[in-house]
Amino acid sequence: MAPLALFAHDLMPVPAKVQPGAGRLRIDGNFAFVQLNGYREARLETAAGRLVEHVARKTGIPMAPGIGVHAPAAPLVVYCDHASAAVQTAQEDESYRLTVTPLGARLDAPTPLGVMHGMETFLQLVGMDADGFGVPAVTIEDHPRFPWRGLMLDVARHWMPLADVKRTLDGMAAVKLNVFHWHLSENQGFRIESKRFPKLHEMGSDGQYYTQDQVREVIAYARERGIRVIPEFDMPGHATAWFVGYPELASGPGPYRIERQWGIFDPAMDPTREEVYQFLDAFIGEMTALFPDEYFHIGGDEVNGKQWDANPRIQEFMRAHGIKSNAELQAHFTRRVQTIVEKHGKKMIGWDEVLSQDMPRNILVQSWRGQKALADAAKQGVTGILSNGYYLDLGYSAAHHYAVDPLGEGAADLTAEQKQRVLGGEACMWSEFVTPELLDTRVWPRMAAIAERFWSPREVTDVADMYRRLGAVSRDLEWLGLTHGVEYEKMLERLAGGGPVGPVRTLADVVEPVKDYAREAAHPYDRFSPLNRLIDVARPDSDTVRRFAMLVDRMGAGDLPEIREWLMRWRDNQMRLAPMIANSALLAEDAELSKNLSAIAEVGLQALDRLQGAQPRAAGWIEEKRALLERARQPKGELILSVEPAIWKLVEAAK
Amino acid sequence: MAPLALFAHDLMPVPAKVQPGAGRLRIDGNFAFVQLNGYREARLETAAGRLVEHVARKTGIPMAPGIGVHAPAAPLVVYCDHASAAVQTAQEDESYRLTVTPLGARLDAPTPLGVMHGMETFLQLVGMDADGFGVPAVTIEDHPRFPWRGLMLDVARHWMPLADVKRTLDGMAAVKLNVFHWHLSENQGFRIESKRFPKLHEMGSDGQYYTQDQVREVIAYARERGIRVIPEFDMPGHATAWFVGYPELASGPGPYRIERQWGIFDPAMDPTREEVYQFLDAFIGEMTALFPDEYFHIGGDEVNGKQWDANPRIQEFMRAHGIKSNAELQAHFTRRVQTIVEKHGKKMIGWDEVLSQDMPRNILVQSWRGQKALADAAKQGVTGILSNGYYLDLGYSAAHHYAVDPLGEGAADLTAEQKQRVLGGEACMWSEFVTPELLDTRVWPRMAAIAERFWSPREVTDVADMYRRLGAVSRDLEWLGLTHGVEYEKMLERLAGGGPVGPVRTLADVVEPVKDYAREAAHPYDRFSPLNRLIDVARPDSDTVRRFAMLVDRMGAGDLPEIREWLMRWRDNQMRLAPMIANSALLAEDAELSKNLSAIAEVGLQALDRLQGAQPRAAGWIEEKRALLERARQPKGELILSVEPAIWKLVEAAK
Repeated sequence: MAPLALFAHDLMPVPAKVQPGAGRLRIDGNFAFVQLNGYREARLETAAGRLVEHVARKTGIPMAPGIGVHAPAAPLVVYCDHASAAVQTAQEDESYRLTVTPLGARLDAPTPLGVMHGMETFLQLVGMDADGFGVPAVTIEDHPRFPWRGLMLDVARHWMPLADVKRTLDGMAAVKLNVFHWHLSENQGFRIESKRFPKLHEMGSDGQYYTQDQVREVIAYARERGIRVIPEFDMPGHATAWFVGYPELASGPGPYRIERQWGIFDPAMDPTREEVYQFLDAFIGEMTALFPDEYFHIGGDEVNGKQWDANPRIQEFMRAHGIKSNAELQAHFTRRVQTIVEKHGKKMIGWDEVLSQDMPRNILVQSWRGQKALADAAKQGVTGILSNGYYLDLGYSAAHHYAVDPLGEGAADLTAEQKQRVLGGEACMWSEFVTPELLDTRVWPRMAAIAERFWSPREVTDVADMYRRLGAVSRDLEWLGLTHGVEYEKMLERLAGGGPVGPVRTLADVVEPVKDYAREAAHPYDRFSPLNRLIDVARPDSDTVRRFAMLVDRMGAGDLPEIREWLMRWRDNQMRLAPMIANSALLAEDAELSKNLSAIAEVGLQALDRLQGAQPRAAGWIEEKRALLERARQPKGELILSVEPAIWKLVEAAK
Repeated sequence: MAPLALFAHDLMPVPAKVQPGAGRLRIDGNFAFVQLNGYREARLETAAGRLVEHVARKTGIPMAPGIGVHAPAAPLVVYCDHASAAVQTAQEDESYRLTVTPLGARLDAPTPLGVMHGMETFLQLVGMDADGFGVPAVTIEDHPRFPWRGLMLDVARHWMPLADVKRTLDGMAAVKLNVFHWHLSENQGFRIESKRFPKLHEMGSDGQYYTQDQVREVIAYARERGIRVIPEFDMPGHATAWFVGYPELASGPGPYRIERQWGIFDPAMDPTREEVYQFLDAFIGEMTALFPDEYFHIGGDEVNGKQWDANPRIQEFMRAHGIKSNAELQAHFTRRVQTIVEKHGKKMIGWDEVLSQDMPRNILVQSWRGQKALADAAKQGVTGILSNGYYLDLGYSAAHHYAVDPLGEGAADLTAEQKQRVLGGEACMWSEFVTPELLDTRVWPRMAAIAERFWSPREVTDVADMYRRLGAVSRDLEWLGLTHGVEYEKMLERLAGGGPVGPVRTLADVVEPVKDYAREAAHPYDRFSPLNRLIDVARPDSDTVRRFAMLVDRMGAGDLPEIREWLMRWRDNQMRLAPMIANSALLAEDAELSKNLSAIAEVGLQALDRLQGAQPRAAGWIEEKRALLERARQPKGELILSVEPAIWKLVEAAK
């Protein structure tokens, strides 16, 4: 049997164990046959139908169950042992075993969840070679490292229609994520129908909300893909949209209107009035009846306390009850809410802030602060999940997120028992800068690398191999209908304004958005800001830059022609792009960036000449160029010329 | 005012009258405001909402009705005079007048149909320049040349799910088409639920059919876009799928199974049995109640008569009734069916074959035969529409279809009154070689050029200008969600099998599928044939080939470097593509094509050297190369190296 290293599979997440076999199972029109054995349920039939459809789409081979050319033995035999929980939990057995031989494939799993994960693995294995489409012979034993592998989607700051949510769930299932955290309310919008308090969605959403029928549809869609759905209703802060219809919930006098800006705002629920808890009791009762998951997220983050400070009645309440700080006041509120959540049969989740001394230990903390905060909670017996390090909106590379481990850093010294309390993690897609058009380009493919961190063995950390497989999974995701590739092209076309797309793409491929919160700092943005600029198009993670940097790092003799080719293309791009920039309101802000690219590419070419001996390596030359490259390093239009460090390396090498 | 020629608009179809104005209406977040005046109906509100959404998508500027930054005067004021018919007919007033000034735009139309057409024109006018997005000042008075502008979609040979039908309607509305002809039954499938005769869809569709609710959904969706929906139930031939459930309708003994091959088949309804007409009466009653259009299509094409010849009872019937030929027997059948259709309050449409001596004149003939057949019908007082020349499945260029005029050729000598009987035309998308994945790449953008033929004044015939505008409308269609561009890229990626897409694209961009019915002749195809090869990817109309041919035709001194660049790319492509071909079952058949491209490009470069004087123009050189180019001219893998004629021209020029 071939050694493991020789079997360069394209799987993401990497399975726990992969044992290559000999030969290959051919995939043709007969693949339409998947045979289900053992425990049966409708969800398994649907999953089998979906697998056939996805294989047909990936291969372009028509597959229609039941009408194949011949009637062969099923090329994929599935055995499922028993049902998973009626409402999916974080304690499910998601393992599976997949065996592929040239004669057929067999998938064994204790529950439908494992079957579905195994089918996604099978789909990823489908490839083409000189003999046609097929799956390599292999034995895979697989199970997740963490039981909680999530994505939080903020549909409140920018509204995401139902189709976008479903498409996101398609992608999640493909990389074995199992928790969809739905951030449904914010200062900027209340996004779900409440029959009990209709002014919430009627006055708080600009008409952009999900009906309860649609919510049920999403929950069913997610369950069919092995994904839990957890709603978040952020309180007591981040709640301005509630107050538009129900100002009596707030701590200030109002009136309120839907917030159009981004940021942290003063309005907060009034923790001192019984009517607020009565309202929340009724509301949480309605929502917990709608969402079956055992958890219910109450947010709890970023209360600035200004409304509390300004309200004499609240100040009086604090004095009367010996509450010494706003943090204590929030803890009082959160304990009350936790009681309500528990009364309705659910466990509470909140962001770090919800954890206080006398909070019951059966809550779950979602940490935007980091592993240290999770570790502190775990030591107190509280379960948690990590989100710090997985914020997709901050413009970091896949490698950056990939390096973050829920049990790394401050959680590394936990005991084995305490580690069990770290259930996994959730990536967060906050939507200040994300419209439906941009959604997939901001979530995918980076999310797949994070999914691997949540699923695969801890020691799977090879970044180069991750990127190789990320390319493959990215193409697979496009076959599923995700739009990260498509929308990138369309946005480039918009920037090109009817002119040639090439020069715009050349620039877009070597820039990245500024990281972290630098974008918000650079420019005032709000709900009405067009997100159609180069910064919106630019990928947080440029394949081109990574490729070029690799060539410069390696710099074998064979790499020099490609390095030169790239540099010449960048140098000459300004000539082609400048006239387009002059005629484009959207590209105008990128004039200097384009000039800088050309200038540093020219410096790169000079360095190459020196390296190849075509020019003498003059002493003062580098110093002369340093200033130019340092200027080019500064962000322009909130964009970083991310190819600059590699060119600088080239210059240094030419010393 | 600038002369018309200076106003190079991107409109397709070209309006009847375009009068350019001065300046430009700016489009920003406030465009969300469309004001509706005069006659109102829900459809107008929906159309206004759709326009705002499409402008938002095209520009990337967020537009949410009612929550704009300011509350400005409506930048688009609409005035609609009165309702169109409750059921849209071919006699509607579809005209509109659109006036754009820097201060605002006004759209006037007699009916909602004109309003909707005018809105599509407005959307096409939206563009970007150095000042941002906007619409140029202009006055447009517009109305269609023909009242019947259709697309026939065959959903029977390959099934097209609901989403594909809706997407097709989106595209149709964008280019002002107004008839969706739904080819719902065939030998290969019966695609609609019949409550009266459920074995039709249950046994004749492999489960791939539209429910009646879905049909109503499509009809409503079409009406919201000013499009009529006409169903076709092909009879007495092309009906094998009916006979699977109801063999008693056929002229032969059966049993029948759903046909998996393509072609013309023997089974045909029995025109001699009263039970057949009773069945059709009940069935047509059910379907005419479902489809509101005044027309009902009964097909009628391509009956080979073999089952009739072989059935002694039918032969006896013919003798008894003095019916001398199968054509007469079909005429007998068609007259009976026409009576039934009329009884249910509809007018009958059929293909050419339905027209016989004693057929009532109130039918409509759809001609696959040509203008001469239409003219003959018109002279007999029968109305007709042209489809000959508009078969999208035959692989012809947009220019080819564009040159076909419903009133050209054999119809040119009709009197004015007779010409009125030629109502327009319908493009036909037969689906032997079209899956949902391929649908848009086969319909768009060529369909837009045909739509222009149906709408625009007869004298609009400039092919170069058509192609320029076709590029723009193609991008607009992609913003609407049509997938012709996207699927092309994805299919190239599939062919590349994980390798670089570039070399595959280079080859795909210079080949075209064989034309007419040559593909069916070249290779046995059926329902199970994978349509994932280069021929399925290759466009019937290559931009690259057109560009190169234009350069060669013009051959200014400035064009030579680009000509050389193309030729070098093609020559060198073989080196890059050959190793991929060796590892790809899908590309294997293209090995010779790739070699030939390289070889003829090398010849082209030699010709260029001779033209530029770098090589002497030797006498025998051309003769030497002629054989090579002639070999390369032969189709390979059903593909034509369509760049060869331009290279040949270059060689000839180097004499």
